Amino acid sequence: MRLTRFFLPLLKEQPAEAQIASHRLMLRAGMIRQAASGIYTWLPLGYRVLRNVERIVHEEQAAMGANAVLMPTIQPADLWRESGRYDAYGPEMLRIRDRHDRDMLYGPTNEELITDVFRGAVSSYRDLPRILYHIQWKFRDEVRPRFGVMRGREFLMKDGYSFDIDSAAAIHSYNRHLVAYLRTFERMGLKAVPMKADTGPIGGDHSHEFLILADTGESEVFLDSAVLDLALGDRAIDFDSRDGLQAIVDQWTKPYARTDETHDAALFESAVPEARRTVRRGIEVGHIFYFGTKYSEPLGARVAGPDGAQVAVEMGSYGIGVSRLVGAAIEANHDDKGVIWPEALTPFHAGIVNLKQGDAEADAACQSIYDRLTAAGLEPLYDDRDERAGTKFAAMDLIGLPWRVTVGPRGLKSGVVELTSRRTGESQELTPEAAVAKVAAIYGR
Amino acid sequence: MRLTRFFLPLLKEQPAEAQIASHRLMLRAGMIRQAASGIYTWLPLGYRVLRNVERIVHEEQAAMGANAVLMPTIQPADLWRESGRYDAYGPEMLRIRDRHDRDMLYGPTNEELITDVFRGAVSSYRDLPRILYHIQWKFRDEVRPRFGVMRGREFLMKDGYSFDIDSAAAIHSYNRHLVAYLRTFERMGLKAVPMKADTGPIGGDHSHEFLILADTGESEVFLDSAVLDLALGDRAIDFDSRDGLQAIVDQWTKPYARTDETHDAALFESAVPEARRTVRRGIEVGHIFYFGTKYSEPLGARVAGPDGAQVAVEMGSYGIGVSRLVGAAIEANHDDKGVIWPEALTPFHAGIVNLKQGDAEADAACQSIYDRLTAAGLEPLYDDRDERAGTKFAAMDLIGLPWRVTVGPRGLKSGVVELTSRRTGESQELTPEAAVAKVAAIYGR
Repeated sequence: MRLTRFFLPLLKEQPAEAQIASHRLMLRAGMIRQAASGIYTWLPLGYRVLRNVERIVHEEQAAMGANAVLMPTIQPADLWRESGRYDAYGPEMLRIRDRHDRDMLYGPTNEELITDVFRGAVSSYRDLPRILYHIQWKFRDEVRPRFGVMRGREFLMKDGYSFDIDSAAAIHSYNRHLVAYLRTFERMGLKAVPMKADTGPIGGDHSHEFLILADTGESEVFLDSAVLDLALGDRAIDFDSRDGLQAIVDQWTKPYARTDETHDAALFESAVPEARRTVRRGIEVGHIFYFGTKYSEPLGARVAGPDGAQVAVEMGSYGIGVSRLVGAAIEANHDDKGVIWPEALTPFHAGIVNLKQGDAEADAACQSIYDRLTAAGLEPLYDDRDERAGTKFAAMDLIGLPWRVTVGPRGLKSGVVELTSRRTGESQELTPEAAVAKVAAIYGR
Repeated sequence: MRLTRFFLPLLKEQPAEAQIASHRLMLRAGMIRQAASGIYTWLPLGYRVLRNVERIVHEEQAAMGANAVLMPTIQPADLWRESGRYDAYGPEMLRIRDRHDRDMLYGPTNEELITDVFRGAVSSYRDLPRILYHIQWKFRDEVRPRFGVMRGREFLMKDGYSFDIDSAAAIHSYNRHLVAYLRTFERMGLKAVPMKADTGPIGGDHSHEFLILADTGESEVFLDSAVLDLALGDRAIDFDSRDGLQAIVDQWTKPYARTDETHDAALFESAVPEARRTVRRGIEVGHIFYFGTKYSEPLGARVAGPDGAQVAVEMGSYGIGVSRLVGAAIEANHDDKGVIWPEALTPFHAGIVNLKQGDAEADAACQSIYDRLTAAGLEPLYDDRDERAGTKFAAMDLIGLPWRVTVGPRGLKSGVVELTSRRTGESQELTPEAAVAKVAAIYGR
């Protein structure tokens, strides 16, 4: 993409309304623009990152055996009356009356609707297990929306639901999600730690929140630093193996890791050697939850078991904050100059800065690098504006592309361009061909 | 995908509520399920088609120079008061009051919101032209929703907006869209004809609707059959060439093609030779419209021109009914047995039917075909259920995959499988390798 053809309205000023780095940087880098309190338009740069998050979530959901559906944003109130949540949900639910005076609502979550889909379609244990998920906009009418996309009112979420014949099968579905989430966040270049969460009146061990560590996180977290050293890496995972998944789950969930809500100071001290006791702040980006027959019972989602008897299905629900992840990734990856994108999320793979736009040799070299990166299957952003070098560097630093190729007449005389890492700031002089090859190799092309 | 792992709730009965083929077939083939009147959940099979439509629209929008954004579904009423449309819009607009008693609405369209984005970011003619679009859910509270996704209340639409400094530039943006739409529909395997549409009080030639011909279409259309013979094919299009685009636009819009709303019977008879006068029915799937300063004036979207004077920008808006297209494609492509997907939209590239599930040789042959199609970058659907051949054939015919590979012990004894075209019903016996190669070649792999 040529920058002159890309709608990228950068802000010079610090936006007064933004209290945290990600909100400030998303506004300044032309990623979002507020439409109303807690409601944002995603501008082209931000939308590209949002799509990357979505794509990775979709791919990892498919890999572990979930089927993608798409439920509507507007739901009938009657379903929520069946589950008893219509009155219980409170003023965060956006309630709507249609032109025929029917009560509707903008879905804040989808347990009722997916259970309705399930009960209308599945009648035998032979059709289980099922995992259905979607990535769809939700609305929660927060009293005080703040922190940009981190606590907005309209937000994009992946929510998934599992249906199983019994508790052992349901725990396997839960483990599928836990491991798929580990892979999802790891692929995004983010360190997200599963932490024991409250299961409420249902009890049991089967609720975890995933938190990304960042100084601006909303929760205080307490953890055994051993969990930070764990990584799935390239290991092949058989999601159908109950024992295999359980072993991975154990590895990640045995070390102490809790938020302030479930923290147990005495246990923390007794279970974790002092040198590994770590207290940080974290941002919640995922939550998985096994809740049994909480919705299948009232909504009548039953199947015939092997013996013919009708059984209410065992369910779980599993969320990832897709739009929130964009903000959380910035909280964990930025400096004074701007965003520093992990390679998996970056809106463009590399920036090309032409130090002397209009110089025939520099223009030709930039175009050639652009074409070669494109031919390698990468998407570069070429700053072809007629602007000073300082302005171009500041823009690249602000929007945070991981790699920048700087092209100028002086370097070209010696046959080189400069390749700069946004994260380390280190530069190296390379021939244009070598710079392209290096960037392609970084992205595995 | 193995069918036993894919949520595909087929209906045996004809759904009583469905009046047209696409609605009936989408329900029977497990593509959608109604959540409320005019509001649908997209089940896995339907969602895959919807994503294909989206992908093609995105690719063709990028090719002609548009930038993707994403505006929210919920908008503040105040913007619509600025344009004067808040009161004018009528009861089709879903009006909402939030917890702080602010008037909001579920966007039925986005002229106001995009103009607000533009006016907040662009101040000079040097930043023009701009074309911004998004694919987002809209809501129109139809009095009598019907025909499934063809006239639902919550629907997915691509809407784009162009911003130009003067009328000549705006017409170029209009032409970009007209040609991009021709390519978009042609790639989907659909014959969509641009027809002169009403421009209302603004006048001029610059509004066209795109209609797909189908017997169940909502509009009567009158056209010179010559337009049906036109095709862009593989020609390279330079979207930056004003003359080049105008020539294509002239070629498609000179032949008579109008809906009953703009039909001129006298002109039809005088301008079209009798043998080419064609009267059919059509389904609207796109609409493009140049409307000048209708929104930029009241909303104050002005830029400094070359002489420094402030000029209200010239705008156009351009829609494609993304969810509607899924229904329209079925109306134009089905028979008594079910859907017949064009290759570009099909949810799976080919079906594999195992005539004797559990037979070691048949199972192995199916798996090998499955693996080879996958290795070629295709996504097959393997019916691995323990069902009779007739049940499997009926399911494949209903869901409409263009190609079916049938594998059975008898054929394997002679070293062959059967490759069947859904559209023609013709079968040929081929070695498994040849069948895979043929399917791969059809999809250009």
